[in-house]
Amino acid sequence: MNGYDLDRALQLSAGPEPGVLHGQTDPAWGNMVGPYGGVIAAALVRALLQLQCLGEPVALTVNYAAPVAQGPYQIACRAVRTNRSTQHWMLELQQQVDGALQTVVTATAVCALRREVWHCQDLPLPQAPDPQSLPRSRLFDSVQWLARYDMRVFTGGPPMLQDDSGHDSLTQLWLRDAQLRPLDLCALAAISDAFYPRIWLRRARWVPSGTVSLTLYLHASAAQLGEVGSDFLFGQARAQDFRHGFFDQTAHFWAPSGLLVASCHQIVYYKE
Amino acid sequence: MNGYDLDRALQLSAGPEPGVLHGQTDPAWGNMVGPYGGVIAAALVRALLQLQCLGEPVALTVNYAAPVAQGPYQIACRAVRTNRSTQHWMLELQQQVDGALQTVVTATAVCALRREVWHCQDLPLPQAPDPQSLPRSRLFDSVQWLARYDMRVFTGGPPMLQDDSGHDSLTQLWLRDAQLRPLDLCALAAISDAFYPRIWLRRARWVPSGTVSLTLYLHASAAQLGEVGSDFLFGQARAQDFRHGFFDQTAHFWAPSGLLVASCHQIVYYKE
Repeated sequence: MNGYDLDRALQLSAGPEPGVLHGQTDPAWGNMVGPYGGVIAAALVRALLQLQCLGEPVALTVNYAAPVAQGPYQIACRAVRTNRSTQHWMLELQQQVDGALQTVVTATAVCALRREVWHCQDLPLPQAPDPQSLPRSRLFDSVQWLARYDMRVFTGGPPMLQDDSGHDSLTQLWLRDAQLRPLDLCALAAISDAFYPRIWLRRARWVPSGTVSLTLYLHASAAQLGEVGSDFLFGQARAQDFRHGFFDQTAHFWAPSGLLVASCHQIVYYKE
Repeated sequence: MNGYDLDRALQLSAGPEPGVLHGQTDPAWGNMVGPYGGVIAAALVRALLQLQCLGEPVALTVNYAAPVAQGPYQIACRAVRTNRSTQHWMLELQQQVDGALQTVVTATAVCALRREVWHCQDLPLPQAPDPQSLPRSRLFDSVQWLARYDMRVFTGGPPMLQDDSGHDSLTQLWLRDAQLRPLDLCALAAISDAFYPRIWLRRARWVPSGTVSLTLYLHASAAQLGEVGSDFLFGQARAQDFRHGFFDQTAHFWAPSGLLVASCHQIVYYKE
């Protein structure tokens, strides 16, 4: 074990049942209620890697079906289909609730062998100030997981007033692991959920809300993430539609080199 | 049974096992290999509705794990978690292969009670010519499912030459059911996969490709879709990144009134 907060939170051990890994939530990654959604996504990626999935995860959908309680959990993983170059998984994160094992998170993943073929990136890194020229943002002091990241927001920080004066949902920031842990697939999955709910910004109001489903496309390979090292990623998020108690939220992440490393789409519950 | 092609393809019957529905692929919805991905997504939505899911589907992720063979199939559905206003499902579409039941498609779905709360749409309907002023597009005559739709492409039709001269992946079109079947949640799921692979346009080359995973967010309610009736939807799709044999593809669909009815994200395999 290294000394990184993320790896401490992602320790998974095999039990007697094949495909079932056992972990424990870490209060250092706590959100307002339960663990931060990103660390759950990261634990699912860790599980896939630990079970020696084919190639690397390229797509992951995580459904937050119920609040994850602080404490032990298990991840039941099933490789449903293994093809020549792709592998499909179904995963369930389960906890003991009142003496019964209940599924609190469901997920599907596509793992694949990455091949060097024709490539092209059509979404360029937006213009942004040098992260070193920006102060580290102080966001919500009461939220544990935020302290795990060095975030430097320069567009669309949390609104100062709850006055319904919002007009846009765009946030742009640089972010990296506060401990300078080198970037990898697990760390990228953790980062993918780092944007606060777009409705807070769009309305300028702290509306109770929470991610219901998250889909992550991992464009960069593990080797490419390794080249980012502990440098900042550029992240950008916005929403398109708020209706009937759900809004979508789209985020993209780039390396400083300009490489698009991931896209993340969410559907988020909001109360009012 | 009404006389619509879509409903004929989506007939599902209950068998002895609870939560397992039985269907049959329909050659009228055939793609180059196996059934069109959209009709598979629609069958999963039909299954949820037939099993009286809570409220309506709001998010659906479909993973095309293996080719679906023409013939019978079953959809095994499990409501993993039912909360007060949301319900989480895991689904597997299975077929007999060499005498054994194999999962060829996996999916997760979030169903929810839609509530009248604060709403806002930030993605407006793009400017577009009147669909009645456009001819019906002739796309790929050999592909059965395309005949099920009246598509009127006005930006980014299939390239005429395979000469690697492409420079953009944007397609814009109007489309509706060729039989003028009224729009509903199933029909919207079917339509969500209607864009041909972006790499064909971006490269101007017919590269072998196929959707591996599709995530659909259904923004409009069934009642709102009912108001669209058999009118055209406006659809727009583009890709952001092509790398290592996979590209992403994002599509949005609007009603003529300007209402954003759905967002669809895909990760698509490409060979070279």
